[in-house]
Amino acid sequence: MRKAIYPGTFDPVTNGHIDVLQRACKMFDHVTVIVANNQAKGPLFTLDERLIFFREAIGHITNADVMPMKGKLTVDFARELGALAIIRGLRAVSDFEFEFQMAQMNRKLDDRIETIFFMPNEEYFFTSSNLVKHVARYEVDRIANLMPKNVLEALRKKQSIQ
Amino acid sequence: MRKAIYPGTFDPVTNGHIDVLQRACKMFDHVTVIVANNQAKGPLFTLDERLIFFREAIGHITNADVMPMKGKLTVDFARELGALAIIRGLRAVSDFEFEFQMAQMNRKLDDRIETIFFMPNEEYFFTSSNLVKHVARYEVDRIANLMPKNVLEALRKKQSIQ
Amino acid sequence: MRKAIYPGTFDPVTNGHIDVLQRACKMFDHVTVIVANNQAKGPLFTLDERLIFFREAIGHITNADVMPMKGKLTVDFARELGALAIIRGLRAVSDFEFEFQMAQMNRKLDDRIETIFFMPNEEYFFTSSNLVKHVARYEVDRIANLMPKNVLEALRKKQSIQ
Amino acid sequence: MRKAIYPGTFDPVTNGHIDVLQRACKMFDHVTVIVANNQAKGPLFTLDERLIFFREAIGHITNADVMPMKGKLTVDFARELGALAIIRGLRAVSDFEFEFQMAQMNRKLDDRIETIFFMPNEEYFFTSSNLVKHVARYEVDRIANLMPKNVLEALRKKQSIQ
Amino acid sequence: MRKAIYPGTFDPVTNGHIDVLQRACKMFDHVTVIVANNQAKGPLFTLDERLIFFREAIGHITNADVMPMKGKLTVDFARELGALAIIRGLRAVSDFEFEFQMAQMNRKLDDRIETIFFMPNEEYFFTSSNLVKHVARYEVDRIANLMPKNVLEALRKKQSIQ
Amino acid sequence: MRKAIYPGTFDPVTNGHIDVLQRACKMFDHVTVIVANNQAKGPLFTLDERLIFFREAIGHITNADVMPMKGKLTVDFARELGALAIIRGLRAVSDFEFEFQMAQMNRKLDDRIETIFFMPNEEYFFTSSNLVKHVARYEVDRIANLMPKNVLEALRKKQSIQ
Repeated sequence: MRKAIYPGTFDPVTNGHIDVLQRACKMFDHVTVIVANNQAKGPLFTLDERLIFFREAIGHITNADVMPMKGKLTVDFARELGALAIIRGLRAVSDFEFEFQMAQMNRKLDDRIETIFFMPNEEYFFTSSNLVKHVARYEVDRIANLMPKNVLEALRKKQSIQ
Repeated sequence: MRKAIYPGTFDPVTNGHIDVLQRACKMFDHVTVIVANNQAKGPLFTLDERLIFFREAIGHITNADVMPMKGKLTVDFARELGALAIIRGLRAVSDFEFEFQMAQMNRKLDDRIETIFFMPNEEYFFTSSNLVKHVARYEVDRIANLMPKNVLEALRKKQSIQ
Repeated sequence: MRKAIYPGTFDPVTNGHIDVLQRACKMFDHVTVIVANNQAKGPLFTLDERLIFFREAIGHITNADVMPMKGKLTVDFARELGALAIIRGLRAVSDFEFEFQMAQMNRKLDDRIETIFFMPNEEYFFTSSNLVKHVARYEVDRIANLMPKNVLEALRKKQSIQ
Repeated sequence: MRKAIYPGTFDPVTNGHIDVLQRACKMFDHVTVIVANNQAKGPLFTLDERLIFFREAIGHITNADVMPMKGKLTVDFARELGALAIIRGLRAVSDFEFEFQMAQMNRKLDDRIETIFFMPNEEYFFTSSNLVKHVARYEVDRIANLMPKNVLEALRKKQSIQ
Repeated sequence: MRKAIYPGTFDPVTNGHIDVLQRACKMFDHVTVIVANNQAKGPLFTLDERLIFFREAIGHITNADVMPMKGKLTVDFARELGALAIIRGLRAVSDFEFEFQMAQMNRKLDDRIETIFFMPNEEYFFTSSNLVKHVARYEVDRIANLMPKNVLEALRKKQSIQ
Repeated sequence: MRKAIYPGTFDPVTNGHIDVLQRACKMFDHVTVIVANNQAKGPLFTLDERLIFFREAIGHITNADVMPMKGKLTVDFARELGALAIIRGLRAVSDFEFEFQMAQMNRKLDDRIETIFFMPNEEYFFTSSNLVKHVARYEVDRIANLMPKNVLEALRKKQSIQ
């Protein structure tokens, strides 16, 4: 049985993330989404919210689950779960460089864990969580098709509070 | 009549920005500079100061004006002004990627508004607002020719207060 | 009246090129496509074929025409036609660097001519003439929607000859 | 059973290619190396030589084999072999852009075949076939550890003929 | 006598920095490391700690010393020390662009001071101070060979306090 | 005495190359320009012409000379001349990647020879030999200030023959 993990902040999960996850789920028997807390970035949604959003949004995928990242290194998390690989989506050159540095560091930390890169569908090339949050402050319904329904609903509520 | 907008934070406006504006003003009947508030970035100058700096600095350009960005999406601002295009300056590969993601998102939000890219004069390739602010903390007069006179004066005053 | 030129080898013209042209035609009163001979690259189609393909494919655009590049510099061609601008499509970082060097050189040669950059529709980001020709050697019908009908027909004929 | 293909020109195979193959072989039940003829590039070694070099060099890998690319599209080759994925190594930003265009085109041609990217060991980041061939013209023994023994032997013979 | 300076935040110094310094020390008679305070970045270690770490770590290099950056421009610091050059390490494309803008700005501020770029050993390509700090929060001993011993000791202490 | 080499094809030498050489000559006691034959690229000028052009153009630089690259590796050439360093100019991201691969390979071949990178003056950022040759086919006098006089003269003669 070949397992992988798909780590990220997912603040919030977008259809681009789900697209990458679905592609990975065809290559592996099981993929665990790992949601990092990342307090340093000042996330819009709490870790619990982000976990719930992702879980609800992938109810249709039978070989994936969602867990919080606890205070440890990603490679250690992977090994404890028996995962062979860390999944990452690549959209842009700037992604590429950062991801490569992370992947090299992770290989140094544990060379049994491989980082492998997937390319999201072209319609999600510009769908970063940051751009989604930026637009959502004004007009979330105009990008409704870039995110799962529960995230759309949550962003709508934040918009009405503003 | 073909109109365009030129949005940015302009904290502060540099001669590189004015160079791009002048190039755009030859292509369009009118260009409106849109100054974003961008509190998140902790701007050096207030929105009002930035508006005044830009307005004063382009007194010689007859087909441009300067307005604040109010709480709405850039594409909506463009459409309400009857603008066909969003003007952006491109200097570096890292600009390019971010600008491309923004432009794709804006096209998704309103595909009637086109983003078009201009290249500033080579002497402004390295003139980012951030570098200007960094140098201005110590020696603003040594880069006096990178910015309009009113900005120079304002940076000199900040320097003398330090 | 504001005119522009859109130069290239167009071997063959793709829907990505036509997409860029259409966007430019909304910004300018007239756009002239300039087809370079480019014998050095060993083009698949003759200059005459490439001219005809492009002309036929844009019969629906009323403010564009197509001309061959004769032995002169692009900026001189622009000036003789009374054009203000050179139009270029940007898809990738590698495009960006080459295009920037060309644009700087062209500005040096004639600083009255501006190079401005458009972003093609995301579905054409990967549609280079080279990739089209590569796939067309085997299975041109599978990428039929990436090119105008006359180009498809011509590529089909080449395929049947092989 | 999950299969993948690893296509390339492999002129000649380097230890960087074998490193990528080994990483892929841990993720898949079987990986088929597909050697493209690529007459256009004027290969140093014949297709037959390149096939033999790769086959001999991976005798220790039990779940990989090597086949020539016959005149068809890579995605069709993948599908006929029952492969889910196309394996590619990524070393540099310039690789990244070209690979992304190829991957998008391949997805368009057959969206059931996924392209996934592996990062070679850092010691092979600079080991392109072109650099190996360049150095091998003068001093192949100084880069002996960048290639399998049979390739080293063949390059030594070419060197002595020069 | 040819002198150079090697400026940076060095929070903390890594073996990658020391590798670049050693390479520079072979090209110049003397190299002065300049440690910037950089309060804006919220450094992990105080300026004094960073100075001490670097000084202790290069006791074996006879033609280098370490000084704090006082409130002035880097080029002015260089000139006052009689240095001809500013040394910078380049690892990645994203480094490259930022470094180039800085170097152009510095040349504009004082064109007698040259910026020259060195490439660290490939094993340090992924060794940014940020990645080191990230990993050090959990498992500093696993990357012990990426930093000098005194930094390792200091990071261990911070870890045990957490 | 610290020596360096500055290798290239120099087909033809431009003022950008001479600018880089002058910068390097301030850092080193002596710099030897090494002109590669590079028949594979189909040079416009013969090796002898290129040697003469460069020699004549740097008569004012007292600590540089010009030699042909004979059939050996660049690092071996450097060592035989007693040079510590290989000088390279960096203008663009695409330069950067290729240069980095070359520099890593050269370090592997002989780790006593350092590759160091200089940034040419901003006015030469777009001055590649290829662009110069392209423009020179039509209008060499319009870019007269991008090259030494002897190269200008030689390109004028080629132009009149066409």
